[in-house]
Amino acid sequence: MKMRPSGRKTDQMRRVSFERNFSKHAEGSCLVRFGDTHVLCTASLEEKVPAWLRNGGKGWITAEYGMLPRATGERMRREASAGKQSGRTQEIQRLIGRSLRAVVDLPALGERQISIDCDVLQADGGTRTASITGAWIALHDCLKWMEARNMIKVERVLKDHVAAISCGIFANQAVVDLDYLEDSAAETDANFVMTGSGGLVEIQGTAEGKPFTEEEFAELMRLAKDGIAELVGLQKQAIAG
Amino acid sequence: MKMRPSGRKTDQMRRVSFERNFSKHAEGSCLVRFGDTHVLCTASLEEKVPAWLRNGGKGWITAEYGMLPRATGERMRREASAGKQSGRTQEIQRLIGRSLRAVVDLPALGERQISIDCDVLQADGGTRTASITGAWIALHDCLKWMEARNMIKVERVLKDHVAAISCGIFANQAVVDLDYLEDSAAETDANFVMTGSGGLVEIQGTAEGKPFTEEEFAELMRLAKDGIAELVGLQKQAIAG
Amino acid sequence: MKMRPSGRKTDQMRRVSFERNFSKHAEGSCLVRFGDTHVLCTASLEEKVPAWLRNGGKGWITAEYGMLPRATGERMRREASAGKQSGRTQEIQRLIGRSLRAVVDLPALGERQISIDCDVLQADGGTRTASITGAWIALHDCLKWMEARNMIKVERVLKDHVAAISCGIFANQAVVDLDYLEDSAAETDANFVMTGSGGLVEIQGTAEGKPFTEEEFAELMRLAKDGIAELVGLQKQAIAG
Amino acid sequence: MKMRPSGRKTDQMRRVSFERNFSKHAEGSCLVRFGDTHVLCTASLEEKVPAWLRNGGKGWITAEYGMLPRATGERMRREASAGKQSGRTQEIQRLIGRSLRAVVDLPALGERQISIDCDVLQADGGTRTASITGAWIALHDCLKWMEARNMIKVERVLKDHVAAISCGIFANQAVVDLDYLEDSAAETDANFVMTGSGGLVEIQGTAEGKPFTEEEFAELMRLAKDGIAELVGLQKQAIAG
Amino acid sequence: MKMRPSGRKTDQMRRVSFERNFSKHAEGSCLVRFGDTHVLCTASLEEKVPAWLRNGGKGWITAEYGMLPRATGERMRREASAGKQSGRTQEIQRLIGRSLRAVVDLPALGERQISIDCDVLQADGGTRTASITGAWIALHDCLKWMEARNMIKVERVLKDHVAAISCGIFANQAVVDLDYLEDSAAETDANFVMTGSGGLVEIQGTAEGKPFTEEEFAELMRLAKDGIAELVGLQKQAIAG
Amino acid sequence: MKMRPSGRKTDQMRRVSFERNFSKHAEGSCLVRFGDTHVLCTASLEEKVPAWLRNGGKGWITAEYGMLPRATGERMRREASAGKQSGRTQEIQRLIGRSLRAVVDLPALGERQISIDCDVLQADGGTRTASITGAWIALHDCLKWMEARNMIKVERVLKDHVAAISCGIFANQAVVDLDYLEDSAAETDANFVMTGSGGLVEIQGTAEGKPFTEEEFAELMRLAKDGIAELVGLQKQAIAG
Repeated sequence: MKMRPSGRKTDQMRRVSFERNFSKHAEGSCLVRFGDTHVLCTASLEEKVPAWLRNGGKGWITAEYGMLPRATGERMRREASAGKQSGRTQEIQRLIGRSLRAVVDLPALGERQISIDCDVLQADGGTRTASITGAWIALHDCLKWMEARNMIKVERVLKDHVAAISCGIFANQAVVDLDYLEDSAAETDANFVMTGSGGLVEIQGTAEGKPFTEEEFAELMRLAKDGIAELVGLQKQAIAG
Repeated sequence: MKMRPSGRKTDQMRRVSFERNFSKHAEGSCLVRFGDTHVLCTASLEEKVPAWLRNGGKGWITAEYGMLPRATGERMRREASAGKQSGRTQEIQRLIGRSLRAVVDLPALGERQISIDCDVLQADGGTRTASITGAWIALHDCLKWMEARNMIKVERVLKDHVAAISCGIFANQAVVDLDYLEDSAAETDANFVMTGSGGLVEIQGTAEGKPFTEEEFAELMRLAKDGIAELVGLQKQAIAG
Repeated sequence: MKMRPSGRKTDQMRRVSFERNFSKHAEGSCLVRFGDTHVLCTASLEEKVPAWLRNGGKGWITAEYGMLPRATGERMRREASAGKQSGRTQEIQRLIGRSLRAVVDLPALGERQISIDCDVLQADGGTRTASITGAWIALHDCLKWMEARNMIKVERVLKDHVAAISCGIFANQAVVDLDYLEDSAAETDANFVMTGSGGLVEIQGTAEGKPFTEEEFAELMRLAKDGIAELVGLQKQAIAG
Repeated sequence: MKMRPSGRKTDQMRRVSFERNFSKHAEGSCLVRFGDTHVLCTASLEEKVPAWLRNGGKGWITAEYGMLPRATGERMRREASAGKQSGRTQEIQRLIGRSLRAVVDLPALGERQISIDCDVLQADGGTRTASITGAWIALHDCLKWMEARNMIKVERVLKDHVAAISCGIFANQAVVDLDYLEDSAAETDANFVMTGSGGLVEIQGTAEGKPFTEEEFAELMRLAKDGIAELVGLQKQAIAG
Repeated sequence: MKMRPSGRKTDQMRRVSFERNFSKHAEGSCLVRFGDTHVLCTASLEEKVPAWLRNGGKGWITAEYGMLPRATGERMRREASAGKQSGRTQEIQRLIGRSLRAVVDLPALGERQISIDCDVLQADGGTRTASITGAWIALHDCLKWMEARNMIKVERVLKDHVAAISCGIFANQAVVDLDYLEDSAAETDANFVMTGSGGLVEIQGTAEGKPFTEEEFAELMRLAKDGIAELVGLQKQAIAG
Repeated sequence: MKMRPSGRKTDQMRRVSFERNFSKHAEGSCLVRFGDTHVLCTASLEEKVPAWLRNGGKGWITAEYGMLPRATGERMRREASAGKQSGRTQEIQRLIGRSLRAVVDLPALGERQISIDCDVLQADGGTRTASITGAWIALHDCLKWMEARNMIKVERVLKDHVAAISCGIFANQAVVDLDYLEDSAAETDANFVMTGSGGLVEIQGTAEGKPFTEEEFAELMRLAKDGIAELVGLQKQAIAG
């Protein structure tokens, strides 16, 4: 059986760590590392909501995503200089926002917006899943900051954990947490977002060459469930620390 | 048990039709209707490929998606006038392109590009799934046009059918082919893209409020399989006509 | 005497038809066909006016124009993807708006805006004149929709018909309603917009190579008057239907 | 009979002057004044043509138009800062280019482009007609510059004069060369572009409120012919000087 | 010792002139000439301030800068057509605004904005320093216009003169007021902005190849002080005239 | 005498550190910290130069600058989402590029481009001076990477160190290395860029309220010289490490 390039077992994730309070200004922040993928996540509180939500008594969570130009093997053009965000960037930032909103009680947040920024300092595959997983920590810490100022109760606003992992069919076997080498060569690639209690928030599966079967997909989902449970465990340790 | 707004059964699709050769200029074209959702799909052949594919002996399929400003209940701002395509538009056109490429043998196409345009004339939910399903017809007819000129063999380039359907949890029951009313109110919304032989090409499932369970997701997939099989049958009739 | 490519007589227009209520959402809509030129015109009512008209008790009619990328013989770049509307597009949509406002009593409309969208599904010359002629039907039907809700009286707001036709010098003879082949080869090209009672609203005459004479221009105007009278007759039948 | 605000007679133009060689860098340049309307026209020679003309042995004349922000009574937003040219700007620069090309033998120019820039330093109505009239001088002087370097023969390239004037119905009478006050209040506004030998190059007539009649239009054309003849006379004096 | 291309002495400025009231519409305007560098400066009064200053009882001075496309030896692309202002343009307009604000008592101006536009009609080096020097005249005349309407007292709002000059090391000697030939070849280039009473407002020194020494910089500053004193003298004559 | 907010002495810099090889992909990289100002600098080698340098046998150094949205006390809008880089961003990235080019022998580099990216992870004043100082380390390490591959000799390409520091008049005293609190309140603010051998590369001095005197400026320059000498010492230690 062909080895994974990193020598990991099929169900073995990369080393994951969360460095809280990375940024002195943000209400919540976290540098999340999935192996060599490093994403800085910040949560910024603003005392206003988008125009279409105004006077509805409900808050909002939004997200933006970016990559430093040399986060990758070859330098990419800076999106600010290109004058627009790529389709991929927009897809990812919409996904991050939806994923976090799925575990937040927006009316309990009150008429405020929390803006999540996920900026990839170094990329090695799985930047979107690392972003979601780290953003949850930044969001949690932002809510703690608010609780310390009697603005909200964290437990009423944040209903559950949320974390994400990628899985894929690489060299004919299902593997979890793809790094860049695997991601580039995978036949099928799927991202899963799940809550701490095992609820599904988002599933995105894509055939990169030939279609995949239901059985393959079921196997990917099994790997994802275990991986996300592990990530949620690490999140719990991180916020306990 | 609560009825669907349209009175349809949970596993009942809307009336689907394909009007081929809608456009006199395009090499392939099709006006696809899923109930009140009407999308004009055209396939345009170009004798060149994007720069990054040049001299590789491989072709390419790309797609663009648009909505007429008053395709919807309220007039939306024209994207050409806004000066950019929304994140949603980009997400959809990337999905259409990927879905079609999954059933095309790109080297057999030769160094040419086929551009698919899906323009929504009228929207009532499910525009992306109707687009993919209709685009397959336009692509097929474009390839037939090429075959008639001895450029390719259709059966070597087009490996299978591809079609797509949306499913969702509406009023606590799994239903197929959501219209706009259902889509707006659904708790979970999933789009499936599958081939004629039942292979999975793309799965996108999203919780719109509370997370969904594996069982619910399995039920959505069952509905999708039946629906897509039906769509493939209708595609076969259409190209036989 | 050289024949027109279509075999039409010099003063013979193409077959013109109006398909009302093409769109289920718009307050007024019409698919207008001048031969193979097909334009979908919708009229959308909005209960607000542009900032510079606010609190003036006057309404506004505005127009936007677009072409589907494969409306033409060769696929054109999508303006939403290019990030801006061409000079030609802007010229045409300004013309459509001016032409309709010439027959509307804006104070009688009240402080509301009607947005006209003219989207060319298939082009074969004369898209701007077809747009104006079809837009009048969409506008009329939008006003009827408003009258049915006691918002206005159609006869007080809509003072007259308006229609448009192109004429040109093709192969040394003046001809009416140029199709694409004629348009590409015409030495002089003129568009006329006139009201039902024969008033001139807009004249645009352009030499495409050598200058034209006053006599030639007078002949073009004669053809235009007859053509527009015919179009107004067809509009009358359409709204009577 | 109501007077014109300036006290001019109905067929009386403003004082027109041409200041050649206004710019030391341009191959041809001219500051044209129609009363208080002042436009700086430059002609810049480039030894290349647009991509679509390459290797066709034909030259090209193109034009750009701009207004300084405070050329007008109220400061307008700078288009470079707004990030795009308005529809009006694009309409005018297309008109200037077409008008000049009508009197140029493009093959005789050779595979070169002359770019005309018309920048309005001060506006008081009629900026597009002043631009065309002054641009002809700049173009002429650029061609003279080329002739002095044995690149072309002016008389073979420049087939005729071209000049332009606006006319309109103001206070129920037809008047020539509208200034800003007249332009704002005119019921009908028409721009005429004609050659030195009286050929028509472009006619643009627009009703600003109520439609106009054929008789009114004929009267405007009579005024325009006389006015343009006068302008051509002044051009001749200017280049003789 | 190598001569300057123009034959000027090292401390000799070009001929400088101010043509006031160049524009009939602007509240203040001035065509400033530093040799062949000609800049039209206008000052436009607006009875509102930017959003971030609202209700603060303070006014604002802002500036925009532009170059006509053929102000230079080779035609440059029009920024309005390119769709954005270059970094150089933005740098210069920020500098002009800061320089003028340094001599204005913004609370004494009241809650109003004066917009300065500096448009280069012809360039021969030193456009930014000519712009600042001429803009002061336009600003002064705008304030006089306001004083004549009892809106402000000029002497309370305008605290001092401000003028600017470039100096540089050309052919190993320090020279003042570089023209284009010198500017292109200078090893070091420095712009100085100073007040009438000799206060420093802005210093920008740049090595264009090899670094410069403190002694060289001190020499440039000496030349600048004398040059600016001369410019302030000319400003005084101009506003006295 | 009023204390600096940080308690530092007037000539005391913040703690400065360089973390080399922060990024695994870039040929050279460095996380530079000036107190709480943290900038990630990367140097990316590309085997091509801008079009205007092609076939000239000369290399190029260019720079881009960005700030993460929550690098600052209040979240700023992401420039990629705004669709353009601010004037400030462009000013800074031009400065970084010029400063580095002043110490590089471009012909010795060969026909290659090194792109420097300076991304501010956390801001507390002085981001542009920290960027230049850290970018020199990234550039140095990129050149070392090239030397290890026998592409160049570092000592022939990199002629000297370059570093930068800000100084200002805060509370009536000249201080070095302003943090955000000082920067916001400073009356005069000056940035100095100097080489290791004490040559001046760039001076930018700006009065933020009242003009400054020559004596004050001389004092700022004295502080800058000492500060930059210290920075160069730290650079030497860093690359020795």
